[in-house]
Amino acid sequence: MTSDSTYDLAVIGAGPGGFKAALTGAGLGLRTVLVEKGEFGGTCLNTGCIPTKLFLGASASVHELHAQARLKIANGSIDIDLPALQNRKQKILAGHRKAMQSRLVGAGVTIVNGAARLESKTELVAESETSANEIAFKSLILATGSRPAVIPGMVPDQNIVLDSDGLLDLEEAPESLAVLGAGAVGLEMARFFSSLGTKIILVEALGRIAPFEDPEVSEALLKIFKREGWTLHVGKKAASLEVQDGKARLMLETGEEILAQKALTAFGRTPNTQGLGLENAGITLDKRGFIQTDANLCAQGKIFAIGDVNGQAMLAHAASDQARYVVRFIAGKEKGPYSPAPIPWCVYGAPETLRVGQMAHDLKARGLPAQVSKSPLAANPIAQAHAAPHGFVKAVWSDGKLVGITAVGFNVTHLATQAAIMVQQSWTKHNVKQLIFAHPTLDEALRDALLAEPVEV
Amino acid sequence: MTSDSTYDLAVIGAGPGGFKAALTGAGLGLRTVLVEKGEFGGTCLNTGCIPTKLFLGASASVHELHAQARLKIANGSIDIDLPALQNRKQKILAGHRKAMQSRLVGAGVTIVNGAARLESKTELVAESETSANEIAFKSLILATGSRPAVIPGMVPDQNIVLDSDGLLDLEEAPESLAVLGAGAVGLEMARFFSSLGTKIILVEALGRIAPFEDPEVSEALLKIFKREGWTLHVGKKAASLEVQDGKARLMLETGEEILAQKALTAFGRTPNTQGLGLENAGITLDKRGFIQTDANLCAQGKIFAIGDVNGQAMLAHAASDQARYVVRFIAGKEKGPYSPAPIPWCVYGAPETLRVGQMAHDLKARGLPAQVSKSPLAANPIAQAHAAPHGFVKAVWSDGKLVGITAVGFNVTHLATQAAIMVQQSWTKHNVKQLIFAHPTLDEALRDALLAEPVEV
Repeated sequence: MTSDSTYDLAVIGAGPGGFKAALTGAGLGLRTVLVEKGEFGGTCLNTGCIPTKLFLGASASVHELHAQARLKIANGSIDIDLPALQNRKQKILAGHRKAMQSRLVGAGVTIVNGAARLESKTELVAESETSANEIAFKSLILATGSRPAVIPGMVPDQNIVLDSDGLLDLEEAPESLAVLGAGAVGLEMARFFSSLGTKIILVEALGRIAPFEDPEVSEALLKIFKREGWTLHVGKKAASLEVQDGKARLMLETGEEILAQKALTAFGRTPNTQGLGLENAGITLDKRGFIQTDANLCAQGKIFAIGDVNGQAMLAHAASDQARYVVRFIAGKEKGPYSPAPIPWCVYGAPETLRVGQMAHDLKARGLPAQVSKSPLAANPIAQAHAAPHGFVKAVWSDGKLVGITAVGFNVTHLATQAAIMVQQSWTKHNVKQLIFAHPTLDEALRDALLAEPVEV
Repeated sequence: MTSDSTYDLAVIGAGPGGFKAALTGAGLGLRTVLVEKGEFGGTCLNTGCIPTKLFLGASASVHELHAQARLKIANGSIDIDLPALQNRKQKILAGHRKAMQSRLVGAGVTIVNGAARLESKTELVAESETSANEIAFKSLILATGSRPAVIPGMVPDQNIVLDSDGLLDLEEAPESLAVLGAGAVGLEMARFFSSLGTKIILVEALGRIAPFEDPEVSEALLKIFKREGWTLHVGKKAASLEVQDGKARLMLETGEEILAQKALTAFGRTPNTQGLGLENAGITLDKRGFIQTDANLCAQGKIFAIGDVNGQAMLAHAASDQARYVVRFIAGKEKGPYSPAPIPWCVYGAPETLRVGQMAHDLKARGLPAQVSKSPLAANPIAQAHAAPHGFVKAVWSDGKLVGITAVGFNVTHLATQAAIMVQQSWTKHNVKQLIFAHPTLDEALRDALLAEPVEV
């Protein structure tokens, strides 16, 4: 049963996915409501991409200085005022949140503050401390995101043992920081605090750091971090993590003890699915706990799930892309299954990593042929100029067509968009030769990788 | 008359153009000789792109620090050891030169050290202090490059008044530097010495700085440099420049007097055409003094001119591209006229500028319709993170198709290759929407410009 008050589209969650969904819905003429229980912007804006990049940007001078100082070309010292940076962070985040709300309001989206709970396949209630709104909808998009994963027995107290949310609010850099988990979050935070003088102890249970990247990328990162004096425990599981005498005490299964002033748990992220009344709409979770969706990102009937909560690609830009597709699907403007363009995966800081498309080791593991061509950054004039010659760019080919690009080293996330275009268009060497690359640029390292002789893997 | 000793291809000049020409020639099976009278690598490697980028990279920390310090997020000091940087420059340049020679030798190119002079349309002599080699050729490529232009009465003494060659060899940063000419060379050198604490006085005779860029780019640069405390004299011609009491004394036509510890003359560049015996092969110069070439970059018979000496686009990557075309044309692998892909033009430093394709003011001046769409960097999270919110990205459209991109601000040269691809492929907004841009990246400012509503200019 629908009435005049029924929304064409309801969206739960105002992170990058929900924001884009609501904006796109309103833009397509759908009567759209967006329900958010917390701050606008989700993890990305409030405790993810944006503050981490702000911190890395604020401390970029430190790393640049260290690199030149190692060559005795520069010397000096830099202090980062963390409380001042936190103030700036709050201002910037508030500005972005305000801009998001203005755009939504301008587009005609109804905004409801409250925690949403499904009552059926066509109704939800949005509860705040002061009110409860019944909202009827024709279509619904769940964009509730994720939160830092917790391992029992290692629950952050957000004082000594912190997750990324807690770490991003510190007003003082710790003398030492044990980082549990060497994925993007762990590596970026380690880099930031290392630049502030914090001694880094990095622990990764899997056999290599950045375990989702190309194995050679992991290897290059390991060498670079060792050279920087980080302590690395790779392939070692944590047995226990507790607060003892005001310090974090981490015991590894090897029996090694690690004491640090603070510890960061960066074990990945858990989807936000509780309290949503998913059961009232017959929505099921997959075995990892993410909302199960079909080829159209549909969870059930006219209910869709996008972004972190469906577990497909836990990235802000993936969520936005899914949002655009789903709303257009709902509006009848897309017919086929969701088939995204190549998604760039980046780890920021110094060094950085980039991954777009298919990786050689994955193809090989699936029994598919793959060739790779590589170029080291060592000979690139821009990497040389920044005294950061470590790393490489690698292209992955199948039948003479480009299927993937990965890179590690100075500023390689800058190659993201050009790499995404090249992979999207299945470039051949001929395409590369038809293009004029500016000289000198880091982009030339990508060109050199693309034009190097491919070898079978 | 040809004999066994006749080369299929002779190349004069081992800069980026000549290097690429010789390598391509040998790769296509042509018996190739390369004649160079000085250092391998030409202006680009020895006194241009490479050392300037090395200097800017070495001092990048200073600018990053200043930007954060202005927000009171960082404080500190950095000293750049210029003699140490000069040492590193020499090592890096020597390494590149060696690598170039190795590649040429490996490809089977004959290298002759000496000054080349044409004796006819099929013969040249290469003279060094110790020898004179007669070289007969079927085809010849002139890639002799350019040198800093000199204005009579303002000839550099390379002590107080320097051109870019001289300035790049300084072992000590001057207290003050008067920069005559606000093109790429002047701006990059001003940026570098400004980072070292030198007081900058920038003089541009034309009505705006960076006069070859989009007028709004010039305007944005002017504001940024003023904010940094540079003294700017725009639209003012120099009347005289002399050394007086160990200082540079510059008189402007306005009657203003400028005293500085050093002065840089950056009036553009002059092609190297003298002493080449061009007249012996019937080669003519255009009225600006560049070698006149036809649509195939041919100067006369089987003699071609590429790179700075033909004056088409005085950029290393343009020279390399011309080299590839001409050698393939000589080898019969190209038939049509030279029609290059979009060429990225970059000014490096902080801020940077980028220009690819056609600019709106040029189209307008030619009476052609143009639309522009723009996005400021102020809202971009990466620009914010680096405390560098000034500048913008601008897209130029004709009939809904992308024909040009320009940008000014933090790190915008990183957009060069993606911009070149988009212009090369005449992207529409549809193409932009099909692509996933990583978040957060500077590339999103380009995306936002491309998706903004175009306005008629």
